[in-house]
Amino acid sequence: MIVLRQRVCNLVSKLYPPSPLSHRSKKLKASMALSRFEYVKQFETDDRCLPNCWIVVRIDGKGFHRFSDQHNFLKPNDDRSLHLMNCAAKQVMTEFKDIVLAYGQSDEYSFVFKINTSTYNRRSSKLMTNICSLFASTFVFNWQKYFHDVKLKYPPAFDGRVVLYPSNQNLLDYLSWRQADCHINNMYNTVFWALVQQGKLTPQAAQERLKGTLAADKNEILFQDYAINYNDLPEFYRKGTTLIREKKEEQITHKIPQQDGTFKEKAELKIKSELVELHTDIIGSSFWNNHPEILTPKLKR
Amino acid sequence: MIVLRQRVCNLVSKLYPPSPLSHRSKKLKASMALSRFEYVKQFETDDRCLPNCWIVVRIDGKGFHRFSDQHNFLKPNDDRSLHLMNCAAKQVMTEFKDIVLAYGQSDEYSFVFKINTSTYNRRSSKLMTNICSLFASTFVFNWQKYFHDVKLKYPPAFDGRVVLYPSNQNLLDYLSWRQADCHINNMYNTVFWALVQQGKLTPQAAQERLKGTLAADKNEILFQDYAINYNDLPEFYRKGTTLIREKKEEQITHKIPQQDGTFKEKAELKIKSELVELHTDIIGSSFWNNHPEILTPKLKR
Amino acid sequence: MIVLRQRVCNLVSKLYPPSPLSHRSKKLKASMALSRFEYVKQFETDDRCLPNCWIVVRIDGKGFHRFSDQHNFLKPNDDRSLHLMNCAAKQVMTEFKDIVLAYGQSDEYSFVFKINTSTYNRRSSKLMTNICSLFASTFVFNWQKYFHDVKLKYPPAFDGRVVLYPSNQNLLDYLSWRQADCHINNMYNTVFWALVQQGKLTPQAAQERLKGTLAADKNEILFQDYAINYNDLPEFYRKGTTLIREKKEEQITHKIPQQDGTFKEKAELKIKSELVELHTDIIGSSFWNNHPEILTPKLKR
Amino acid sequence: MIVLRQRVCNLVSKLYPPSPLSHRSKKLKASMALSRFEYVKQFETDDRCLPNCWIVVRIDGKGFHRFSDQHNFLKPNDDRSLHLMNCAAKQVMTEFKDIVLAYGQSDEYSFVFKINTSTYNRRSSKLMTNICSLFASTFVFNWQKYFHDVKLKYPPAFDGRVVLYPSNQNLLDYLSWRQADCHINNMYNTVFWALVQQGKLTPQAAQERLKGTLAADKNEILFQDYAINYNDLPEFYRKGTTLIREKKEEQITHKIPQQDGTFKEKAELKIKSELVELHTDIIGSSFWNNHPEILTPKLKR
Repeated sequence: MIVLRQRVCNLVSKLYPPSPLSHRSKKLKASMALSRFEYVKQFETDDRCLPNCWIVVRIDGKGFHRFSDQHNFLKPNDDRSLHLMNCAAKQVMTEFKDIVLAYGQSDEYSFVFKINTSTYNRRSSKLMTNICSLFASTFVFNWQKYFHDVKLKYPPAFDGRVVLYPSNQNLLDYLSWRQADCHINNMYNTVFWALVQQGKLTPQAAQERLKGTLAADKNEILFQDYAINYNDLPEFYRKGTTLIREKKEEQITHKIPQQDGTFKEKAELKIKSELVELHTDIIGSSFWNNHPEILTPKLKR
Repeated sequence: MIVLRQRVCNLVSKLYPPSPLSHRSKKLKASMALSRFEYVKQFETDDRCLPNCWIVVRIDGKGFHRFSDQHNFLKPNDDRSLHLMNCAAKQVMTEFKDIVLAYGQSDEYSFVFKINTSTYNRRSSKLMTNICSLFASTFVFNWQKYFHDVKLKYPPAFDGRVVLYPSNQNLLDYLSWRQADCHINNMYNTVFWALVQQGKLTPQAAQERLKGTLAADKNEILFQDYAINYNDLPEFYRKGTTLIREKKEEQITHKIPQQDGTFKEKAELKIKSELVELHTDIIGSSFWNNHPEILTPKLKR
Repeated sequence: MIVLRQRVCNLVSKLYPPSPLSHRSKKLKASMALSRFEYVKQFETDDRCLPNCWIVVRIDGKGFHRFSDQHNFLKPNDDRSLHLMNCAAKQVMTEFKDIVLAYGQSDEYSFVFKINTSTYNRRSSKLMTNICSLFASTFVFNWQKYFHDVKLKYPPAFDGRVVLYPSNQNLLDYLSWRQADCHINNMYNTVFWALVQQGKLTPQAAQERLKGTLAADKNEILFQDYAINYNDLPEFYRKGTTLIREKKEEQITHKIPQQDGTFKEKAELKIKSELVELHTDIIGSSFWNNHPEILTPKLKR
Repeated sequence: MIVLRQRVCNLVSKLYPPSPLSHRSKKLKASMALSRFEYVKQFETDDRCLPNCWIVVRIDGKGFHRFSDQHNFLKPNDDRSLHLMNCAAKQVMTEFKDIVLAYGQSDEYSFVFKINTSTYNRRSSKLMTNICSLFASTFVFNWQKYFHDVKLKYPPAFDGRVVLYPSNQNLLDYLSWRQADCHINNMYNTVFWALVQQGKLTPQAAQERLKGTLAADKNEILFQDYAINYNDLPEFYRKGTTLIREKKEEQITHKIPQQDGTFKEKAELKIKSELVELHTDIIGSSFWNNHPEILTPKLKR
């Protein structure tokens, strides 16, 4: 629509001075008004991100404590919610081809653009608002697919931010920070809800019980009192979700018509990029060694 | 959830050095990892808006030309879409009490925060992403309410930006700019679709026909060829939608129990703020004279 | 010089491919190198100030405590230093015609650009560095004029910043803040140095003596112990220096040659703008009422 | 001085409400005024540079075409001016220990801070204004040392900017860009002034003569018409000046008093860092191979 607008405005603003016809001059006023007001565009700022930095957009559910209560999320982890988050993140990656990796846990997701992306001219506002709104609308759009018999009571919001990381190491440390956060939260929540659900403690008592405990202490509570070996819990909960693209070769067979009316088959290899969902450690180096292409663009310059 | 995280991290990071127990030291590593990686938070920037400026968040449908095609929007205006946009905008104003006015037209909406708002500490990213994502999720959430028998094919995105206006006049000129834009687009679209729908021109021919025409010319095409008086078209289309809050007095009647067992009625006046939807001119001064409270905070300082 | 550069680069970069002559291709490499490296310009950011805001550039002597010691500044106020500061500020105002007011005290100076200035396209870095460096170089250039028999031991630095104020009231409050600061410092310093110079206290003892005292207490020490009435001290010290431009009419007499060989005198009024140095209160309204033209541009829009 | 101010303000603002004594309350008003106005500090912005990026401050003489004319600079290069520029740059490096390299040519200088510097908390305004003003004041301070019998007619200004470079390669490309610029300008100027000074062409004619010429053409004019071999000209002009720090071992001899009243000499090695001025190619890799310590901090993370 912008294109039409632009064309109209340009044409109109060329036509000057106003004709003597009164109805003509009256309508002209409107378009002249447009150009008279257009100075306000100068108040917009240029928010392009520094080149040659990794652009990370992190989004975070707004008021998800209440949201999860209202929709009776299972504790400590609700698979439906986690899968819905992943579904929304995949939609974002499908729309934004320059996102090379996404990492999600709990009610948050981080999207990593390739270091030299020129998506939206690297404009910070454009990147974060498009991702945030697409994530939110996809979340609602697919709600029923995951929460079959739970009615969505109100539409949720997500806040977002853009953070720049100049070096590969900074980026890896950022992702490690989020995964370490996942680990610590998940361990806390696992013990907390064991105490509440199985141990019949009140939430306050459970909180009190955990005050000052180390990871090791929590491990022991789980193991001794509830026969849970934390390390046996699904990686889905302990590691969060990492989405990457993987190039897959696909063999396509064409039928080539021959002069004698028959067909000859001809095979062709096509390379396709596919979203892959992983629940694995991304703090150590082995993930990165296995997927060198994610950081590759940095090597170019 | 942040609160829990914080508490855990703080406690854990105080405990140092690691105990000699191997499982303990192993788990400690995770939390120490957390604090080792936390330096990446320093890469986030402070994006608070300059104080004493009007904060405008404008959102805009992404790729809505295609979106309206895919969902067979009526042309030149689709009431269902406009009402759905207004519904989403009202949700935003219900959540963000410091928005004093919103103006929408076509696939865009502008939200004006009161000049001295401290919502999210005036942080630009927080404001735009929350509004954008809430708008988008509400749009999907309420789709069926307006598009009864049209299935939403895919979740839409909206981009957003924050613009600051230091003076009342700048703000009024901004809003005038958007309403003048509404007028010019609507007139163009009205003639364009008359030529296509009633005149049976191809879109290309219609476009060609309108090339170089002034508003006055378009008025005449409408009137002469299609007996449409542009000024008789609904203000809903020609002026867009303005949402404001209006204080309404409401009389509440309490029944007060008396000593003799009877009740006495007591009336009380309560002031309630309500969202009001207007389709009126906001370029001229009369709207502003009738609603002085919108700009009032500016007068204080 | 930029112009020459640009021209050369442009011409050179058009000429491609390289000629077969080896020395030619060798030299071409250099200019091609230039264009190969030019991408680094994209890392520069756009730092234009928000329109319709007062731009204040404040500069501040770096390490002036040591600087004043090293050059034996008189205490509590050294006229030579204050006059030199004013001299440098006037030079800045002579170069930057859009500065409508400057206020200085101690080792700092604030320069106020008219609200709609387009000096350097309102680019923040350009404004602050030019003013800062011109101030510093003028300070050194004119040192001897004020410190006749004191050799400048080393060149001083000044730091600077840009602050935006959206409304007239914000600007007035900013200037009031600086003048209130001048008042409080000057009173403290006046008592402190009376205690040290006349009361023969050590600096530590003087500091101790003043701990917790109010302005009123300081006034009484000055009056009782040293017979100094603070309000009788020169406004130069108590109020700082305000520089403004004043339009002055000047009568110029031209001698017009007549046909008979004689001359006839013809008077003409010319309006000249002159820098005026004031030592007066700028917190109250009377200064602003007497000089309405300073804030006038704000009234326009 | 800030410390004193702060202390006074703090104390004063605690004392509330005002005492009944009229003179006391009068003075209190001043300090309360101070705190009443202090809100204007909130309009200052946080301009810290992104961590883990090279910070480059480039300064540039303002109006140096005119400045060099007014002071009869020799053409195409004036040694006195270049040495004075270098002297000012050294002063800057002496004050700012975190500058690891400076590169200067013509009337500009670039200062490179180590990638993880925390000078002024990486605040952009502080860095550029301090450097710019110190450079300018040093330029004036040392003028006479280089321009023995030329009176400085007016104090010059320098503008400055901060640019961030995320990777070593970006930084090297930046420096290469400046040195390639030096090369191209110097070649142009050398031919231009040969044509004017020896060829007796007017500046316009010289400019016309050079229009469209390549480096190779210029080389030939110099060689054929003026017997100048460009490559034999001093590297000082062709390469500009690079300032780095070099660690030098220095043997210091202490005399240790012995029990018998004699002295014994004891040698000690001390490592000192010295500024070194080079006129060499910094585009190729050999300079960087010889000085690996300049980029070293980047290797750490």
